[in-house]
Amino acid sequence: MKDLAKRVDLLRESPTRKIDSIREKLKRENRDIIVFSAGQPSIPPPIEIRELMGQLLKVESMELYGYTPSQGIYELRQAISEDLKRLASIDVDPDSIVVTAGGQAAMFSTLATLIEPGDEVILFDPTYFGYKPLLDYYGAKIVRHYVSMENEFQPDIEKLKSQITSKTKAIIIVTPDNPSGRLITHESAKALAEIAVDHDIWLITDEAYKTLIYEGEHEYLYKYAPNNVISLNTFSKDPAIPGWRLGYAYGPKEVISKIKLVNEEMVYCPPSFAQHMVARYLRSEVRMSYIKRVVEEYRRRRDIMVSEIRSKLPGAKFVIPKGSMFVFTDFKEYGLNGDYLSNLLLEKYGVASVPGSYFSEVYTSALRFSFVAETPERIKKGIEKVSEALEDLGKNHTK
Amino acid sequence: MKDLAKRVDLLRESPTRKIDSIREKLKRENRDIIVFSAGQPSIPPPIEIRELMGQLLKVESMELYGYTPSQGIYELRQAISEDLKRLASIDVDPDSIVVTAGGQAAMFSTLATLIEPGDEVILFDPTYFGYKPLLDYYGAKIVRHYVSMENEFQPDIEKLKSQITSKTKAIIIVTPDNPSGRLITHESAKALAEIAVDHDIWLITDEAYKTLIYEGEHEYLYKYAPNNVISLNTFSKDPAIPGWRLGYAYGPKEVISKIKLVNEEMVYCPPSFAQHMVARYLRSEVRMSYIKRVVEEYRRRRDIMVSEIRSKLPGAKFVIPKGSMFVFTDFKEYGLNGDYLSNLLLEKYGVASVPGSYFSEVYTSALRFSFVAETPERIKKGIEKVSEALEDLGKNHTK
Repeated sequence: MKDLAKRVDLLRESPTRKIDSIREKLKRENRDIIVFSAGQPSIPPPIEIRELMGQLLKVESMELYGYTPSQGIYELRQAISEDLKRLASIDVDPDSIVVTAGGQAAMFSTLATLIEPGDEVILFDPTYFGYKPLLDYYGAKIVRHYVSMENEFQPDIEKLKSQITSKTKAIIIVTPDNPSGRLITHESAKALAEIAVDHDIWLITDEAYKTLIYEGEHEYLYKYAPNNVISLNTFSKDPAIPGWRLGYAYGPKEVISKIKLVNEEMVYCPPSFAQHMVARYLRSEVRMSYIKRVVEEYRRRRDIMVSEIRSKLPGAKFVIPKGSMFVFTDFKEYGLNGDYLSNLLLEKYGVASVPGSYFSEVYTSALRFSFVAETPERIKKGIEKVSEALEDLGKNHTK
Repeated sequence: MKDLAKRVDLLRESPTRKIDSIREKLKRENRDIIVFSAGQPSIPPPIEIRELMGQLLKVESMELYGYTPSQGIYELRQAISEDLKRLASIDVDPDSIVVTAGGQAAMFSTLATLIEPGDEVILFDPTYFGYKPLLDYYGAKIVRHYVSMENEFQPDIEKLKSQITSKTKAIIIVTPDNPSGRLITHESAKALAEIAVDHDIWLITDEAYKTLIYEGEHEYLYKYAPNNVISLNTFSKDPAIPGWRLGYAYGPKEVISKIKLVNEEMVYCPPSFAQHMVARYLRSEVRMSYIKRVVEEYRRRRDIMVSEIRSKLPGAKFVIPKGSMFVFTDFKEYGLNGDYLSNLLLEKYGVASVPGSYFSEVYTSALRFSFVAETPERIKKGIEKVSEALEDLGKNHTK
């Protein structure tokens, strides 16, 4: 009887973890790797806040170390509520917010709370690869809503309506999207909300990149359907503490209280040091100036990457990302498979990227290039190396 | 279709959370509460390590903030391996260790990995209340193994054998135990291991309090059945970072790799700041001196609580705890119900405790008193107040 539960048969190592381990191996071999693969920031949290936390670590008290309420400390939930008011002019009660051990825990606990085996969930293609394994784990049937580069990755509302059945439990929408960097338009946002209300289904909106906006405006779906939206958020991107594991979900109180219970069973409470840090950050004077500075720097790197791709990889197709950290670049015109190209680039040319197949059944010739991890010089060098790889394959002819 | 999944109907708020919220309420009313309820340390981590982490926070790098491998950083797993060697002379390969977001995540992910609906799991009574809701959540059938104060809470090996069926998946053993403070004896440890091997079942050993030992020795069950034992551990008690959420599990590599995958889906990776801190702590010069100092202080407080109970509550029965943080005190001779008494003590006498019914179907007249949270003076004051309550009820006659 020393066998394992069947549910774990469904779990696979996260695909980017595989890339990480090849990167580790090459690093041990002293190979210099240009990292276009990572979805994490390169600018640490504001020094003012880090120094403050360093001071607090000297205090002889259990304040920073003790368990917190499983929903998160009140000061942080209040600070989040104020932040949502400031960013989006929306009113979210601190009791409608549950702090979680990162965005991943918000996803895991929300799906645990909503999904019965056999429920249908509409998931965009391409979109973030973290949802499929969780939906499989909880026995959901995934209904793909294909969006295209030609249409700037916006949903096709009529098509979406036709995909809804009596079994549809939720639509998942990542905006700004990973990998495409698309922002949902105002019209799409309102239409999505209307569909959710009309059909009485959940709208799970993943807003991990909501403050990394380079053009246009982020649409907070909660504005249009507060009783149907469950919003998933993270502090991994802003203020850049991915490893500290802190995020939050907000939505109708009844469902948030259940999501809280799942988190309590999973991790008892969210990490306290991170909670104390972020509560101070969100209420600090540097909150808006810090993220403004980060966005300016990332925009500069995005523009460099975009112009390098245009000049060095003339056959590559992409939509300029309005938010997030990525240029989702399609190599279909070169007749190349993304998995093959990604692997070749990493092993032979020292450039790490994430293949399109991780995000899509369609964009299997694409690569996701992150523009935030490397300096402008190294971004140029990286794209140059991609160009070199294509030349070597006899596919590129810029010279 | 906007309903929730049935699995969350099984979840209830952790019982100690209810006590916490009454405590909060009384605090807001400026009532001074003597805290015998908390299962968390009162001595913060070593100042040397806290100051070091404060220094590292000033460095302009993403090192402390980035994602880590989902199994935990290698340095920490190596430090844990060395620590187990130092403490117990056991050899545990760093790859047989998975770092988790606290002991709770180790429990949640281990049971997710092992338990199929209908599996039988043998759980002691009394023991830690965290297991029952998780076993219910995963559909296990709980088989209670009753242990008694008269027998110093040791298992009855013959009885235990008779409880094993073809459906038995695991035995869960918390040692040092919460709430009883019992250490498994060498004979019991070997017998448990033999049963697990003979019947090919898992032995889940919860060693949260393994370094808080006041007399005797902690038995590492892994020594006797390395292929059957999954050991669950936490850094909440040593080095006293309960809110930071860091723990680990070790056991056979095949099952640890699956537990890792569950953790990856739950939280992506364990909190990185805590990992960097504990890796430094375990390898520091203060590692053994710190815990020695903590144990001496807690032992002093335990002795004071024990002698106060003896003199002030002559009808109360208990076994002197050899480990953990608690005196599990039975008020049966007073003819009192533990829930009633606990509530009365909190609301009227300002003493917080945890009722025996949280841990046991049998010891419903007992209370769990923690001796680590309060100073010796306040421990005396607290027991005095319990005595006062009993006098007021006409139940105590020490004067």
